[in-house]
Amino acid sequence: MNPAKYNSVTAEVADELKRIVGEKFVIFKDDEKLEPYSRDEIPGTEYRAMPEVVVRPGTAEEIALIMNLANREMIPVTPRGAGSGLSGGAVPVFGGIVVSMDRMNEIIEVDKENMMITVEAGVVSNEINERLKDDGLFYAGYPMSLETCFIGGNVAENAGGGKAVKYGVTSRYVLGLEVVTPTGEIVQLGGKRIKDVTGYNILQLMVGSEGTLGFFTKIILKLMPLPKYQVDLLCLFNTSREAIDVVPRIMTEGGVIPTSIEFMDKLAVKTTCDYLNETLPYENAGAMLLISVDGSDKARLEEEYELIGEFCEKAGATEVYVADNPTTSERIWKIRRNIAEACSLITPRQCGEDIVVPPASIPVMISEFDKICGKFDVTIPCFGHAGDGNLHARIVSNPDWTDEYWHDILPKILVELYALTKKLGGTLSGEHGIGCKRKKYIGHVVSEVYINLMRAVKNAFDPNHILNPGKIFD
Amino acid sequence: MNPAKYNSVTAEVADELKRIVGEKFVIFKDDEKLEPYSRDEIPGTEYRAMPEVVVRPGTAEEIALIMNLANREMIPVTPRGAGSGLSGGAVPVFGGIVVSMDRMNEIIEVDKENMMITVEAGVVSNEINERLKDDGLFYAGYPMSLETCFIGGNVAENAGGGKAVKYGVTSRYVLGLEVVTPTGEIVQLGGKRIKDVTGYNILQLMVGSEGTLGFFTKIILKLMPLPKYQVDLLCLFNTSREAIDVVPRIMTEGGVIPTSIEFMDKLAVKTTCDYLNETLPYENAGAMLLISVDGSDKARLEEEYELIGEFCEKAGATEVYVADNPTTSERIWKIRRNIAEACSLITPRQCGEDIVVPPASIPVMISEFDKICGKFDVTIPCFGHAGDGNLHARIVSNPDWTDEYWHDILPKILVELYALTKKLGGTLSGEHGIGCKRKKYIGHVVSEVYINLMRAVKNAFDPNHILNPGKIFD
Repeated sequence: MNPAKYNSVTAEVADELKRIVGEKFVIFKDDEKLEPYSRDEIPGTEYRAMPEVVVRPGTAEEIALIMNLANREMIPVTPRGAGSGLSGGAVPVFGGIVVSMDRMNEIIEVDKENMMITVEAGVVSNEINERLKDDGLFYAGYPMSLETCFIGGNVAENAGGGKAVKYGVTSRYVLGLEVVTPTGEIVQLGGKRIKDVTGYNILQLMVGSEGTLGFFTKIILKLMPLPKYQVDLLCLFNTSREAIDVVPRIMTEGGVIPTSIEFMDKLAVKTTCDYLNETLPYENAGAMLLISVDGSDKARLEEEYELIGEFCEKAGATEVYVADNPTTSERIWKIRRNIAEACSLITPRQCGEDIVVPPASIPVMISEFDKICGKFDVTIPCFGHAGDGNLHARIVSNPDWTDEYWHDILPKILVELYALTKKLGGTLSGEHGIGCKRKKYIGHVVSEVYINLMRAVKNAFDPNHILNPGKIFD
Repeated sequence: MNPAKYNSVTAEVADELKRIVGEKFVIFKDDEKLEPYSRDEIPGTEYRAMPEVVVRPGTAEEIALIMNLANREMIPVTPRGAGSGLSGGAVPVFGGIVVSMDRMNEIIEVDKENMMITVEAGVVSNEINERLKDDGLFYAGYPMSLETCFIGGNVAENAGGGKAVKYGVTSRYVLGLEVVTPTGEIVQLGGKRIKDVTGYNILQLMVGSEGTLGFFTKIILKLMPLPKYQVDLLCLFNTSREAIDVVPRIMTEGGVIPTSIEFMDKLAVKTTCDYLNETLPYENAGAMLLISVDGSDKARLEEEYELIGEFCEKAGATEVYVADNPTTSERIWKIRRNIAEACSLITPRQCGEDIVVPPASIPVMISEFDKICGKFDVTIPCFGHAGDGNLHARIVSNPDWTDEYWHDILPKILVELYALTKKLGGTLSGEHGIGCKRKKYIGHVVSEVYINLMRAVKNAFDPNHILNPGKIFD
């Protein structure tokens, strides 16, 4: 992926794009309108790059024509959902064409009999459950950014989310995809089938491929019966260690699989309460767990959350609050959902990580964070999906440092963090992806053989390296 | 994959194999001992082929050396688990080397804290749960042939099974694989992580690749808390149609996801009862559903099975038996597990199919079977995982036909069956795979673009087409 081999978008190419999608759906030679397409939600300016042209197609066929053109002209193409990613997946690192999926935002069909829904890639994830709530069904795979992200981006990143402990991540729910390949062909993968072993699982290879192996134009998702009740427990602890220690034990000793087990340390909660102007009586706790259980049997649910509460209290919880009504639940979850945004406002000199380790290794991981903080003189507010072993450690610069020092020291901190993660059997990213942000570190946790297998797949699907170059691996 | 390009196994090659794995683990020039490696569980003799040599390695490193040798000498290699497959995946269609995984049969580690188990490929699937039962954990992905099949074969075929309605199929539980690639490299994919988006999902591309993309030498499986109770309902109906109609409604209207919803028609049950010498009072029912629910809350379970019983009775069930003890449960499940074997003994002129359709289309599919039976004058005993839309229709020859006529008419019946399946949104195989048996029909249900993507992956991983050639696609 040598940038020198790519060509620029000429006025002629822009005209041809206008003929494909319609003039009003092309942005060209207008930096102010192009700029929002240069970035995703990574704080700071490091992972930004301006596109030469933005195209907003309305159909799979239009995308296929764009890909044909791009291959012919050797112009890189970067797919873009809502731009809510956290690894630079939607950033056009070599310029070229950004293809925004925002116009392809239709919920095509709700199939209640088969408990499936067919949507276009540009549907905001939250709209799916809004549409389904009267049907007694729900889509369980959505991530924390559900209010803004697109379902197509969720599939491209194999997004995780708040309910993954019990329900798994996006991939479990993707039954079918209509894909435009990097060479401009349209292919149907999977379908309305619960099981399917008719050939290689190219469908699941596409899920999590970060927009480098194809555009998703139609997505068939599996739905679940909507649980009638959800109860959230907010459990306060004096220390992170106490909170984290209890997480694996709830599942192994308690035999309960909660819907969510979210961890927030003191700094994460405080920052978010300030940001939301929320005054919670417990904002000064040392750490908290937000644990949800859901189900359609109220008595069973009560047993479950009482058992969880007992486990937490035995583990040193100072308070266990029960939120069994939507208003209180929403107030708590709003904090959890806004942590990332709140933290990102502290300083641009920070780096949000997404490491994942075997769940039982989380307590060790948290202890090691303390050592890293001490050694490098940084703070690491920490939150995330403790039940999955997925921690969003956020490395925040010492406020006294210069930009230069921060950029010098950060890679050293990351290398140490990743080495530790690997030693514990973990890896770089649980749900945010590699993108351009973590590309240079992927070799720290996976083998060259694995990278070569990925390269072989990429070369096979996209011989010209036209689709989303500069991501995941070189 | 032109067979002419492959070389034969010479005495020198056999000697080199003996040096790699040890002399006593190589079978060469001994047709009687080689013969069992020429076939799997497909009835009849059509899909059989003799290997030239059988090798039984003990380590991943030995397999890597075998693959290096095979690439150098251009000799095809076919991996073999327990040989319990139903699509010819383990059949060495071009002769060459069969690599039997039976010696790599160790349960390496039970990790209770992380609820994961690490096993070698040659472990009999049932042994996993035998080992786990005292730990309050279980592996939910196993198929019906659990008493004989190997876990490696389950992963290679992405086996489904009795519990897939609630728990999903094998792929959901595969967290990590150690793989020997077709070019003889050893690579670790995934690991003890609940979530992982560090690069392409090569792990799930391997699952279900039918031994054509790599050998699995270590497998890390996710475990679940063992439900304390299981109740089985045996629901008798006058007609298949009545039984099948109720299946999707239990889940959509009832909001209950049973562990299993197995369908058996009259012919399937009668044949199996005769085979097992079992005299069930209900052997004359027109059709039956075997529905299981599991959980750790007895009261909830009772509510669930009562609700299911009511749905069945409203749908026309003549009897609903409740088996809430292991002895009665085992008696019923034994029938279900033995249907395939019992049917296969009726006549060698039969063809076991594995079609899968959207669950709500099962009633239509069953009606269409009747039409096919009428049109072609065959019988189709039918059973399978009705809750997944996966039916094991077994096309049985009219006893008056000659072998010649049967071999002439069968492809016509299959083409009609597959066309119908495709029309209903279904496909060739839900869990048995394509192998060499269904290869010639794959183009009837999937597109050339999809086949080309699979070809590209195969070429990228196995440029010499050494590993398990002649399977899935040409």
